[in-house]
Amino acid sequence: MTAHHPHSHPRAAIILAAGQGTRMKSPLPKVLHPVGQRAMLDHAIDAAEALGCERIVVVVGSHSPEVRDHVVRRLGEDAIAVQDPPLGTGHAVRAAEAVLGDFIGHVVVTYGDVPLLKAADIEPVFADGHEGVTVIGFEARDPGAYGRLILDGDDLLAITEAKEASEDVLAITACNSGVMAAPVGLLFDLLAEVKNDNAKGEYYLTDVVELARKRGAPTRAVFAAEDSVMGVNAQGELAQAEALFQSTQREHFLAAGVTMSAPETVHFAWDTAIGAGTTIEPFVVFGPGAVVAEGARIRSFSHIEGAKVATKAEVGPYARLRPGADLGEGVKVGNFVEVKNVRMDAGAKANHLAYLGDGHVGAKANIGAGTIFCNYDGFFKHRTTVGEGAFVGSNSSLVAPVTIGAGAMVGSGSVVTKDVAPGDLALARGQQTTKAGWAARFMATMRAKKAAK
Amino acid sequence: MTAHHPHSHPRAAIILAAGQGTRMKSPLPKVLHPVGQRAMLDHAIDAAEALGCERIVVVVGSHSPEVRDHVVRRLGEDAIAVQDPPLGTGHAVRAAEAVLGDFIGHVVVTYGDVPLLKAADIEPVFADGHEGVTVIGFEARDPGAYGRLILDGDDLLAITEAKEASEDVLAITACNSGVMAAPVGLLFDLLAEVKNDNAKGEYYLTDVVELARKRGAPTRAVFAAEDSVMGVNAQGELAQAEALFQSTQREHFLAAGVTMSAPETVHFAWDTAIGAGTTIEPFVVFGPGAVVAEGARIRSFSHIEGAKVATKAEVGPYARLRPGADLGEGVKVGNFVEVKNVRMDAGAKANHLAYLGDGHVGAKANIGAGTIFCNYDGFFKHRTTVGEGAFVGSNSSLVAPVTIGAGAMVGSGSVVTKDVAPGDLALARGQQTTKAGWAARFMATMRAKKAAK
Amino acid sequence: MTAHHPHSHPRAAIILAAGQGTRMKSPLPKVLHPVGQRAMLDHAIDAAEALGCERIVVVVGSHSPEVRDHVVRRLGEDAIAVQDPPLGTGHAVRAAEAVLGDFIGHVVVTYGDVPLLKAADIEPVFADGHEGVTVIGFEARDPGAYGRLILDGDDLLAITEAKEASEDVLAITACNSGVMAAPVGLLFDLLAEVKNDNAKGEYYLTDVVELARKRGAPTRAVFAAEDSVMGVNAQGELAQAEALFQSTQREHFLAAGVTMSAPETVHFAWDTAIGAGTTIEPFVVFGPGAVVAEGARIRSFSHIEGAKVATKAEVGPYARLRPGADLGEGVKVGNFVEVKNVRMDAGAKANHLAYLGDGHVGAKANIGAGTIFCNYDGFFKHRTTVGEGAFVGSNSSLVAPVTIGAGAMVGSGSVVTKDVAPGDLALARGQQTTKAGWAARFMATMRAKKAAK
Repeated sequence: MTAHHPHSHPRAAIILAAGQGTRMKSPLPKVLHPVGQRAMLDHAIDAAEALGCERIVVVVGSHSPEVRDHVVRRLGEDAIAVQDPPLGTGHAVRAAEAVLGDFIGHVVVTYGDVPLLKAADIEPVFADGHEGVTVIGFEARDPGAYGRLILDGDDLLAITEAKEASEDVLAITACNSGVMAAPVGLLFDLLAEVKNDNAKGEYYLTDVVELARKRGAPTRAVFAAEDSVMGVNAQGELAQAEALFQSTQREHFLAAGVTMSAPETVHFAWDTAIGAGTTIEPFVVFGPGAVVAEGARIRSFSHIEGAKVATKAEVGPYARLRPGADLGEGVKVGNFVEVKNVRMDAGAKANHLAYLGDGHVGAKANIGAGTIFCNYDGFFKHRTTVGEGAFVGSNSSLVAPVTIGAGAMVGSGSVVTKDVAPGDLALARGQQTTKAGWAARFMATMRAKKAAK
Repeated sequence: MTAHHPHSHPRAAIILAAGQGTRMKSPLPKVLHPVGQRAMLDHAIDAAEALGCERIVVVVGSHSPEVRDHVVRRLGEDAIAVQDPPLGTGHAVRAAEAVLGDFIGHVVVTYGDVPLLKAADIEPVFADGHEGVTVIGFEARDPGAYGRLILDGDDLLAITEAKEASEDVLAITACNSGVMAAPVGLLFDLLAEVKNDNAKGEYYLTDVVELARKRGAPTRAVFAAEDSVMGVNAQGELAQAEALFQSTQREHFLAAGVTMSAPETVHFAWDTAIGAGTTIEPFVVFGPGAVVAEGARIRSFSHIEGAKVATKAEVGPYARLRPGADLGEGVKVGNFVEVKNVRMDAGAKANHLAYLGDGHVGAKANIGAGTIFCNYDGFFKHRTTVGEGAFVGSNSSLVAPVTIGAGAMVGSGSVVTKDVAPGDLALARGQQTTKAGWAARFMATMRAKKAAK
Repeated sequence: MTAHHPHSHPRAAIILAAGQGTRMKSPLPKVLHPVGQRAMLDHAIDAAEALGCERIVVVVGSHSPEVRDHVVRRLGEDAIAVQDPPLGTGHAVRAAEAVLGDFIGHVVVTYGDVPLLKAADIEPVFADGHEGVTVIGFEARDPGAYGRLILDGDDLLAITEAKEASEDVLAITACNSGVMAAPVGLLFDLLAEVKNDNAKGEYYLTDVVELARKRGAPTRAVFAAEDSVMGVNAQGELAQAEALFQSTQREHFLAAGVTMSAPETVHFAWDTAIGAGTTIEPFVVFGPGAVVAEGARIRSFSHIEGAKVATKAEVGPYARLRPGADLGEGVKVGNFVEVKNVRMDAGAKANHLAYLGDGHVGAKANIGAGTIFCNYDGFFKHRTTVGEGAFVGSNSSLVAPVTIGAGAMVGSGSVVTKDVAPGDLALARGQQTTKAGWAARFMATMRAKKAAK
């Protein structure tokens, strides 16, 4: 717990992540499905962290140890509450009570399957001076089965479930997102009163609003955009959430001065960073951890993940940058080239059909077409070092660990197993021999064979 | 002809495929253009087969022997009726009369350029007990030039062509798809009465409805979705049909538990099969015959055709699986790797820049970057066998026919022309030699030359 | 100036390109950003040239020497007028007066950031017999801040800026595109009267209309489609213009008989040419200068720029054709193959993982998988010639300059540095040697090491 805190009340978040997600029809637990290549649950935790929550409790089910492990890795054991068996959202929140222990302050309840809800959307629930229950509502394009908010100004009079609603109430478009905040004491006091005398025999968090009003506690709604509060329950909805996420990213980068002729064909990860004046051609995919400077060029069909690209560097088409690829100013990585865990200094080039894995390429060095850094012996990985201004001929195999000195050359087709000193030329290939007329005879024989078939 | 038959009446289909398709502006006959990578005509035949039609007759024109050949290969000579010259749809159907011969039962007339019409859409035309003429209608978003259905309940009073229609009739949105069914005898009796006293001098199938009503035969309409009955007459319409087809496929796979972050960028063939829990990243193309198990991962920019992918296998990015690629559990095929007609046993890997053609790779074998299975001698193809746990060094050429034994190794850059026994190491490359200072001198000379230019 | 001229009046164009384009947030000057891979400014110059303008003057700012250089390269120094400092559109046009010198005729003022405006859209401003001021208007879907055209028939009574407009005037949807034409004398006489007594202290071209009416000169509007006159001020608008451009191109090629199953995934350059009956699969990018004949096939994930593809040739998937690639009839260039500045004669093949740079491949020659044309020595490029019917084995390196004779063969994995005579076989690789049991011992040792870690 931090000693000082910028908010008027300490904050905590309870993130519900115990749902089984059976409609996803996937062995992967629902909340671990990614949006922007980051688990939906992590988006929810990100929002809680950005809100400055001192405590974050994730309520998990007993059926998905992967979710538990995922949370423990990020937040530690203290962040885990287990709901078992699942008896409704109210029941889930109560599972976090003991974990929150002596926490004093305001608690917000969010969801591991609402990936687009940002801290800025949630912030209003913590408005100073409000000591009651706050619900995040949204204006629904098609309210359908959502619970309706019965409002008097900002004052929330009730939440009415659609199936119990009159026609007048069904006409209301202000709906309940499920996100709710309250002082911790009030929240758990109210939850203790929630009953499960309904068709499913579940305890609903929603009931807290009515119970609060009964005891005269203030209840209100604040509003977020419908897209921000969308929940994901099926693969189609996951794809929709991703589409909204990508749309936001694309608008963000266009506004920031990135040139994209077909932004709808560029796919970003949650943490992609790209500088102004960079051009991204159609059909580019960013994985997590990509950082591209200003004034670079990413050509079509490139795939960039965990890699840094400096200014004036040109990547692709068909370049794959993997984690640890670090391209200096003006570096060129061309078609059908894979770079992994290799720093390339300014002006270095690998333009065609190459694999550069685990190593360092000096400034202005030229890696010929078809060159392979043979970094793997079947058991361990080894490093290749190519010095500044070196020239590695096409189709060479550099068997790591190996160093090609500055200004050295490697003849085409060589298999280099020993270090090459600066300025030296290494050759490691067979002498050219000729069998005169052999091809002509062979082809004549084969043509005859083929004709005979 | 099958001995037993589950339907109350025997069924036959006449598929009209004689149109020249000049609006396609393509040398390929229109009905052979693909949707979902299957000829539109084959979609029509598929529907007829799925309806249990005992006889399927395809009416072809004399101008396109490719269509005739295509049908003969699939259904045999008995399925061909030739319409020559083309004198309208009614004339086309009559061309099938002799071919149907003594067939007794109900006949449905469908079209080789209506690729999205499924058996389930057509099935209602065969409703028990209806011995008259049934037309498939659709509610048109924009009825435009379509013939309007004048209905009294299900009862079809007339089909009125748009150009002959009053304003009241033009306001009708129920339109004629052109698909029609009737008992075989009735159909051909009525067709014999159809006249060509119209502007084009053609015999229209549509006229059958009026003739039927004149003789008191029942006429009715059943309805299908507009998208299902769309006809393709131009490249733009073909693309629209494809878009509808892909949209249906994408929804199907999402509902089945396939995770796709950008389903609109994944293109399926008509027969693609994918298991639940498999992830497909953006920009993936499936050709015909792809079968992907549950829980596999298909990464971006992959192209998969005629290949099998087992559970936990990871394909791509930039992997091309061609016919006969058969990837076992947990196999990895990485970037810029092509696999054709090769079985890879569980846990085998080919991660970078390789061509594996015609062969077998044992379990957990590792195929190094840049490896080529040299399967072609210019005339015949030969097989390469790599044993379980073998390690093939980078940039190797395995000259088929050749066998690398289990647990054997091939040194990087080797050209292997002779079998390698299990546990042995094969090397086939030149010794590394050095020319001290050669590179430094060469570069100095060349720099001077370049400066002089 | 041409001696004879088909138009009734000589024509000139003044293209305004002096805006700083700060909203683009890019170091590249706005008008040099591309649409269809051609600078927006060049689209404006193209339109002026297609209109038969004898003189084209581009008004540039002093802040962007790149724009000046770009214009000088295309049109020469005579085409440059400098506006410094920027004091509005009227001021910009006046900057061109001295450059136009003694030109007599009609002048049209267009814009370097309106890339979709074609000569055919502009042509009506030059209607015979009209000696006044003509403005191009458009019907705005959302008129917003556009200046409104107050019209009496074609007669243009006034242009009213939105911020000065009454509600009645704001309801007008006929808006001012900014494009204006007039006889040269009238235009500059009127501009000399334009004042800058407005909030920004700028001289507005628009004011010319009111001044013309004051002196009784005729003023009128002609109309173009809103999409045609869209201006680009931000990256998002550039992407919109590109989307409109691509949409037009896709419809054009579909109408011309090109088969595209997913036209929305095919990106064309401004000058792409494709013959009827050619198939283009999903995810293809054309750079400038691509010419594809009839009946070719471009497979998915291909990138084609500055290249020619003859009939029946098959390209891709994953083929990259770069400038100077020239594929003859029936040539096949397959996956992960790059071709640059190489003529391939009819029936030649390079199906897998190869780099063909600077050379010639004879008819029916076969370039094996993994072959590299080693065209670069670090300083100069050299040529490789492969004769008709030659067979280059897989993973070969052809070190240019080098010639493989007709019908010759190169053994797999060879590094060829000397010419090979027709019909000969060249081998240049190490002998295969075996270290019995070495792999088994190595693997055992390494497994132990790995276990110990």
